[in-house]
Amino acid sequence: MSGNSFGTLFCVTSFGESHGPAFGGVVDGCPPGLELKSEDIQKELDRRKPGSSRHVTQRRETDAVEILSGVYEGRTTGTAIGFLIRNEDARSKDYAAIAEKFRPGHADFTYLQKYGIRDPRGGGRASARETVIRVAAGAIAKKWLRERYGVLIRGYLAQLGPHKIAFKSWDAVGGNPFFSPDDSRTRELEQFMDALRESGDSVGARVNVVAEKVPVGWGEPVYGRLDADIAAAMMSINAVKGVEIGAGFASIAQKGSEHGDEMTPQGFLSNNNGGVLGGISTGQDVVVSIALKPTSSIRVPRRTIDAKGGATTVQTTGRHDPCVGIRATPIAEAMLACVLMDHALRHRAQCGDVTPPVKFK
Amino acid sequence: MSGNSFGTLFCVTSFGESHGPAFGGVVDGCPPGLELKSEDIQKELDRRKPGSSRHVTQRRETDAVEILSGVYEGRTTGTAIGFLIRNEDARSKDYAAIAEKFRPGHADFTYLQKYGIRDPRGGGRASARETVIRVAAGAIAKKWLRERYGVLIRGYLAQLGPHKIAFKSWDAVGGNPFFSPDDSRTRELEQFMDALRESGDSVGARVNVVAEKVPVGWGEPVYGRLDADIAAAMMSINAVKGVEIGAGFASIAQKGSEHGDEMTPQGFLSNNNGGVLGGISTGQDVVVSIALKPTSSIRVPRRTIDAKGGATTVQTTGRHDPCVGIRATPIAEAMLACVLMDHALRHRAQCGDVTPPVKFK
Amino acid sequence: MSGNSFGTLFCVTSFGESHGPAFGGVVDGCPPGLELKSEDIQKELDRRKPGSSRHVTQRRETDAVEILSGVYEGRTTGTAIGFLIRNEDARSKDYAAIAEKFRPGHADFTYLQKYGIRDPRGGGRASARETVIRVAAGAIAKKWLRERYGVLIRGYLAQLGPHKIAFKSWDAVGGNPFFSPDDSRTRELEQFMDALRESGDSVGARVNVVAEKVPVGWGEPVYGRLDADIAAAMMSINAVKGVEIGAGFASIAQKGSEHGDEMTPQGFLSNNNGGVLGGISTGQDVVVSIALKPTSSIRVPRRTIDAKGGATTVQTTGRHDPCVGIRATPIAEAMLACVLMDHALRHRAQCGDVTPPVKFK
Amino acid sequence: MSGNSFGTLFCVTSFGESHGPAFGGVVDGCPPGLELKSEDIQKELDRRKPGSSRHVTQRRETDAVEILSGVYEGRTTGTAIGFLIRNEDARSKDYAAIAEKFRPGHADFTYLQKYGIRDPRGGGRASARETVIRVAAGAIAKKWLRERYGVLIRGYLAQLGPHKIAFKSWDAVGGNPFFSPDDSRTRELEQFMDALRESGDSVGARVNVVAEKVPVGWGEPVYGRLDADIAAAMMSINAVKGVEIGAGFASIAQKGSEHGDEMTPQGFLSNNNGGVLGGISTGQDVVVSIALKPTSSIRVPRRTIDAKGGATTVQTTGRHDPCVGIRATPIAEAMLACVLMDHALRHRAQCGDVTPPVKFK
Repeated sequence: MSGNSFGTLFCVTSFGESHGPAFGGVVDGCPPGLELKSEDIQKELDRRKPGSSRHVTQRRETDAVEILSGVYEGRTTGTAIGFLIRNEDARSKDYAAIAEKFRPGHADFTYLQKYGIRDPRGGGRASARETVIRVAAGAIAKKWLRERYGVLIRGYLAQLGPHKIAFKSWDAVGGNPFFSPDDSRTRELEQFMDALRESGDSVGARVNVVAEKVPVGWGEPVYGRLDADIAAAMMSINAVKGVEIGAGFASIAQKGSEHGDEMTPQGFLSNNNGGVLGGISTGQDVVVSIALKPTSSIRVPRRTIDAKGGATTVQTTGRHDPCVGIRATPIAEAMLACVLMDHALRHRAQCGDVTPPVKFK
Repeated sequence: MSGNSFGTLFCVTSFGESHGPAFGGVVDGCPPGLELKSEDIQKELDRRKPGSSRHVTQRRETDAVEILSGVYEGRTTGTAIGFLIRNEDARSKDYAAIAEKFRPGHADFTYLQKYGIRDPRGGGRASARETVIRVAAGAIAKKWLRERYGVLIRGYLAQLGPHKIAFKSWDAVGGNPFFSPDDSRTRELEQFMDALRESGDSVGARVNVVAEKVPVGWGEPVYGRLDADIAAAMMSINAVKGVEIGAGFASIAQKGSEHGDEMTPQGFLSNNNGGVLGGISTGQDVVVSIALKPTSSIRVPRRTIDAKGGATTVQTTGRHDPCVGIRATPIAEAMLACVLMDHALRHRAQCGDVTPPVKFK
Repeated sequence: MSGNSFGTLFCVTSFGESHGPAFGGVVDGCPPGLELKSEDIQKELDRRKPGSSRHVTQRRETDAVEILSGVYEGRTTGTAIGFLIRNEDARSKDYAAIAEKFRPGHADFTYLQKYGIRDPRGGGRASARETVIRVAAGAIAKKWLRERYGVLIRGYLAQLGPHKIAFKSWDAVGGNPFFSPDDSRTRELEQFMDALRESGDSVGARVNVVAEKVPVGWGEPVYGRLDADIAAAMMSINAVKGVEIGAGFASIAQKGSEHGDEMTPQGFLSNNNGGVLGGISTGQDVVVSIALKPTSSIRVPRRTIDAKGGATTVQTTGRHDPCVGIRATPIAEAMLACVLMDHALRHRAQCGDVTPPVKFK
Repeated sequence: MSGNSFGTLFCVTSFGESHGPAFGGVVDGCPPGLELKSEDIQKELDRRKPGSSRHVTQRRETDAVEILSGVYEGRTTGTAIGFLIRNEDARSKDYAAIAEKFRPGHADFTYLQKYGIRDPRGGGRASARETVIRVAAGAIAKKWLRERYGVLIRGYLAQLGPHKIAFKSWDAVGGNPFFSPDDSRTRELEQFMDALRESGDSVGARVNVVAEKVPVGWGEPVYGRLDADIAAAMMSINAVKGVEIGAGFASIAQKGSEHGDEMTPQGFLSNNNGGVLGGISTGQDVVVSIALKPTSSIRVPRRTIDAKGGATTVQTTGRHDPCVGIRATPIAEAMLACVLMDHALRHRAQCGDVTPPVKFK
């Protein structure tokens, strides 16, 4: 399997460039009989859509999805689900100035060095716009997981640059442009972003994602672990530089007597392991946290080289997210959904005849 | 591909249980013509061997590797390399007391729930002893990467419980029982471990791994990214709960003007990205950091349930590492080596005709 | 990897249904820098196009291909190549009469039984129209193989129903509607087909495909053999029921002293092995022969059952190829091309540093 | 996945050389809870064992299998099943004479040219002895398929050189050294083989394999078809040059009105399709036929070249099967079993919630 596909049984393939005619995706392995309309996908795409507030890129895209196959009379047929999302607002001229320079922190340089050729328009294949495919595929996975197992996957912005945001409520998340779980912080975040945008700079972010009602038993030790596949899926999102499961890096300083989640006949007493033990889901919430680096396309001038290796400086003036992390919440949810669905199918393939022997009261 | 294999072209398959007759591995896809003796593998196995100091498990294993195939007259032939490591010091009686209870933080519970059956002797397949296979496979990858591309992969203990250890020198790493890069801290770490062992508790750790001289261009966007595969490989190591590349979680609070690594005709001026941009190696050091949770098998009594779901407590008295992170350095190096080698092969498959256009002076 | 993708490094993914809006494909893993225009693909699509003579289905499709990604300024960029072929002449009403019945020899029945749901319009996903994707992907593989290694892949109709057609010349193949390698037989074949069409029945066919100038060394023993992957690729073509390499079934009655291809310093003296020994290409022509069964959609009435399991009869009156084998030549060529390209990449991944030690004079 | 593994969910990995210390295998993905003893595997290994009659190689191997993992207290645990079969009667000196020459029709040449190095002892990795691993893995698959679904997989020798053997009874198959289904032909076959052995030559064979009670619905269109995977599995067996499903090459001359299997409420009226339509099992017997070429190691002198490319002749005097097809029946059964089991798991992964709507009476 080459680099533009992921998943063993619920398999997602993606193609498209930022300024090409379209992005497209193929979801293979979806069980038949799932009710699926383009609106089910559109709803999730609209959550990550650019142009939804002044704090994200002003590129105007409807991100309208067209389902091309795999659905008949409103239900999945078990065959490959192909879909397209046309690019509408591609202003390639914005990029003329930087086509011959490498942006520090951007994949411009590595694509050219790897392939000897690159599509410089809008970042080409390296554009975060590729994540529309992940969100679309994730919408299908989310729907199936919810209907088949009751799994609920939700995420939120846990930190914006230096601003940590403690979780208050899921209700808050949909009510502000940041996916922030605390409405009372919105003003503060807006002011921070306004100042940042004005400065021409960018910042990183932390996004947390939680999957509730995941059944016990999903995940294949020892290399195909659930958490290993989650780690890969998250790290494959543009700008992600770190992934934690459960207590994550805080585990380092914990004692075993503090970290190991005690059990009673009623269930676990804590969730330091983030819902995964030995690579297999425990039945608790699967809890994932990711770090996103600051956007590399900024107006602040920076030292760099040109395609001939000569010294120069670069400023990026196109339309960019000053914090890609803001729109990352639906993307991270989608990736978690795809991995969980893949493992749901893998689990019932091997262990379809097993009833978990221990039941909590 | 099922869960006990990883890698696309340099493919590692593992089998074995802690108290079964042996662990075994198969390395498929290794280029032919590599000089390989069992000593090349043994050398690395000895670095992770139990019983090497009082700070690790006292299980006595020679961990002697027997190569069974794929090598002829001292050179790899291009066919699958099979090897065995016999278990010698398996005292299953140590586990009788816990066979019917679940250790908090251990995979006991999830294996039983997933499969409906489990081998309770020494943790069965979930034992960290499985990592011998990773280290053996990694020894092959390390050797090839070094000889073919000059790649050098080294790791060290960066934190032991609450004790952060600043990097001093690679020379120090081999001279103490902790893979600590600072000799002056050895006494302190020993005292900490002695007290910990006495208390019957355990702690977590942080291990950093660095690959030098990695050529530019390895990694397959957008899902088969180098960093995504590294994240999966690291998270698949027993007890790992977090993975960072480069600045990792510190990226969150960075500005773009601080994070993005500037370039000059002589090269990069910093390495916040940890040697990967857009999922492709930059030619800088690949820098990875992982968090390992505290060992779950501890003498401190803990609340748990038995196989019938009833309330009980558990204390684990067998021979265990009070900090699995101490022996994790060669394991993390091995996993990084395997991923890099896989991508070296994948890269030359697709881009074997490409010369990277930009050369630094 | 799920069922709608094939290939390890040169990976083809397909989606689409006969009467849906479009068929689409993704080619992942193509080396960068290949000159590629839609005409390069169109040329091959036109060779399998319906409606090109009275002997094939009269469905009118331009089969115009639109490349959506992976190509920039006329060259492949190394990213996924997505493409679409819209369906234009889908007359679903033709199928109303058979939507509730199963055609003997058709996948109607198995799709419904497997998935519990099926798209009955034009055979849905089981339509031979899906082979447009194979031909398009194969066009890319053919072009790269030709330019990079000089490999030339050509096929011809070797038998039409009871009529065996001895190979006369490659020049003949393009000059008649049957891909027949003997112009002098065209009249006979036309008369046979006219009578067959009038009878409302169908026949099978044999297609031979030959790849010249394949370098020695492609193929991965023991399961990833070149011939094993060719066999899978060919058997995956609609209606194929048999695959032979080299002497194929004739090998059964051969003696070893007859079958084994002798060698001299100038090369092999025969090619019973069809260019593959031990799963690895020998440097001779790769020679493949396939059997295609007769089309299942015929006007002759046949006993069958309906969706409720009741007895009935069925006649299929839509537009169908009375011999699917006639248009199968470009499809078989395409599949062989894709497999060879995949193995070309796999070979240079593992053995990129090997020079074959024996040179023929 | 590299070349020494096959299967998506029921995944078999193989290693070992003819004159190395051992062959080994790993079966990954087997459902937990299957009763499995080494005798279950040994029974099948004994069916393909060398030295069982004067008509096969006189190499003396007990082929004793040692299970190393994945089984606990007589049941599979769901973890990887590793096993070893030691080589005992490896007389490498037999090969000294041919180490520097290529046997016509043997993989000697291609291994050397691909890898630049080869293990010449007993054919190294190319030895048909590798098929012990297939038979061992197949024994596990057969057992599971039988117990879980009632699937019964059996094969027989259908042709020995020029001698076609019509099927008489399954009972006959076990009662002669040829897996012949007609006891009355044994004398004739023995005489033929005695004369052949005396002449120092070899012949090909045809083996047929049938799987009964395969449920409807197994197989993943359009590339992961059941028949495509069967074709690959069969073609990957040493010496196989052709594969047919159902009517196979006889389909070419059939009319559609003859080939398409009619249906009644009681079931199908014929089985030209060999139990597969559109790549999905129909519920009928899966019927496969393979052609095996004559052994390449013969005493008859043949023209060839040496490792320096010079002209020479070669005679092979070691211990060889004069017809590898004789021992191929259990191997072909095993490969079919592995593919069916893989698809059984893949099917219940995707379609575990589907009940086939049509029931035959």
